[in-house]
Amino acid sequence: MTTRRYYDITVPYTDRLPTWPGDPRPEITRLKSMARGDSGNVTHLSAGVHAGTHMDAPVHFLDGAPGMETLPLDALMGPAQVVTMPEADVITAAVLDAAAIPPDTERILFKTRNSALWDDPAHEFTPDFVAVSADGAGWLVDRGMRLVGVDYLSVEPFGSPGHPTHKTLLGAGMAIVEGLDLRAVEPGIYELACLPMKIVGSDGAPARVVLWRDEG
Amino acid sequence: MTTRRYYDITVPYTDRLPTWPGDPRPEITRLKSMARGDSGNVTHLSAGVHAGTHMDAPVHFLDGAPGMETLPLDALMGPAQVVTMPEADVITAAVLDAAAIPPDTERILFKTRNSALWDDPAHEFTPDFVAVSADGAGWLVDRGMRLVGVDYLSVEPFGSPGHPTHKTLLGAGMAIVEGLDLRAVEPGIYELACLPMKIVGSDGAPARVVLWRDEG
Repeated sequence: MTTRRYYDITVPYTDRLPTWPGDPRPEITRLKSMARGDSGNVTHLSAGVHAGTHMDAPVHFLDGAPGMETLPLDALMGPAQVVTMPEADVITAAVLDAAAIPPDTERILFKTRNSALWDDPAHEFTPDFVAVSADGAGWLVDRGMRLVGVDYLSVEPFGSPGHPTHKTLLGAGMAIVEGLDLRAVEPGIYELACLPMKIVGSDGAPARVVLWRDEG
Repeated sequence: MTTRRYYDITVPYTDRLPTWPGDPRPEITRLKSMARGDSGNVTHLSAGVHAGTHMDAPVHFLDGAPGMETLPLDALMGPAQVVTMPEADVITAAVLDAAAIPPDTERILFKTRNSALWDDPAHEFTPDFVAVSADGAGWLVDRGMRLVGVDYLSVEPFGSPGHPTHKTLLGAGMAIVEGLDLRAVEPGIYELACLPMKIVGSDGAPARVVLWRDEG
């Protein structure tokens, strides 16, 4: 007897999330409050769209390119491979060649030492995170991937001049999901639902990201 | 040969969305802009969490009750029944009795005349929408439903004193999704993924909501 088990790989969204240098922290306030005599509680959110678990759209680094509403659902939903890379500092083409990734993989999530940062969900932004090099991005495009996910706030190493990783991936129409918490997930194949807010024209959006498989 | 077909039943999120009386319109601005010389585009969102397609948490009308992060994934994911009610003005227990809803239904989405309002996604808020009466809410709880979805901004008729529909549903732990666009969906059974932002302690959150089934 098997049971479907869900894994929520979304970082809890609070006003203490680490944010990219220069971006504001999310502000979460109450427009209406039962404690103040209103008939219900109504929360207000003010935040950059690249805080917490989120996706990027092509217009993030390609001016005039499509926004979040254009990401195709059949890229965001379907089988996904979780690959562990505990030793890697940069995910290069050579690292990917050595990783025994199944050839039919269309969606790939990299579990690295980054995930441990989510042990403290209110930690300060850490620039020394593991990410995908420009030649690693080319490798993913050449292999026909449709979605790539990483366990910190950017798919690209901090301070990369010209942002070649983003431009290679976004230029190829690849869906990018960033800020995943993969601590509880073993490597292997899962079903993925990676669903961002459908903010028209936006370069990014908060996303809720879930894996599931039958276990037992 | 069958093909999986996805239906995005999420209203596109813009700063022209109709909003509940007293709630502000969403504001969507750019923190960073390539046209202004930044290396990338970064959008900022400022909005009430009950704008557009969204979910409610128990704390929306039950002060001190759980927030969005507590909604169980196995209620938000799974088979869902789309039921059309083109004639109804209020979804009462009697209307539900007459609707031939399969007895094993755990997730139900009501397609009403409301959906036509989304022909103009920038229409003014319309208070005369179809919603679930207090005895209709009791009917859904008695039948063991886990999720209910409606095609306008509230599951409860406008101006209901004391909000009995919300309190009945939220008190029973029912997941509520509001602001769906069901125009393109025929009645019947689908798979549902209804994924809100995981805003800790919040009474609501924007959600991306998708149906799929095999067709062909």
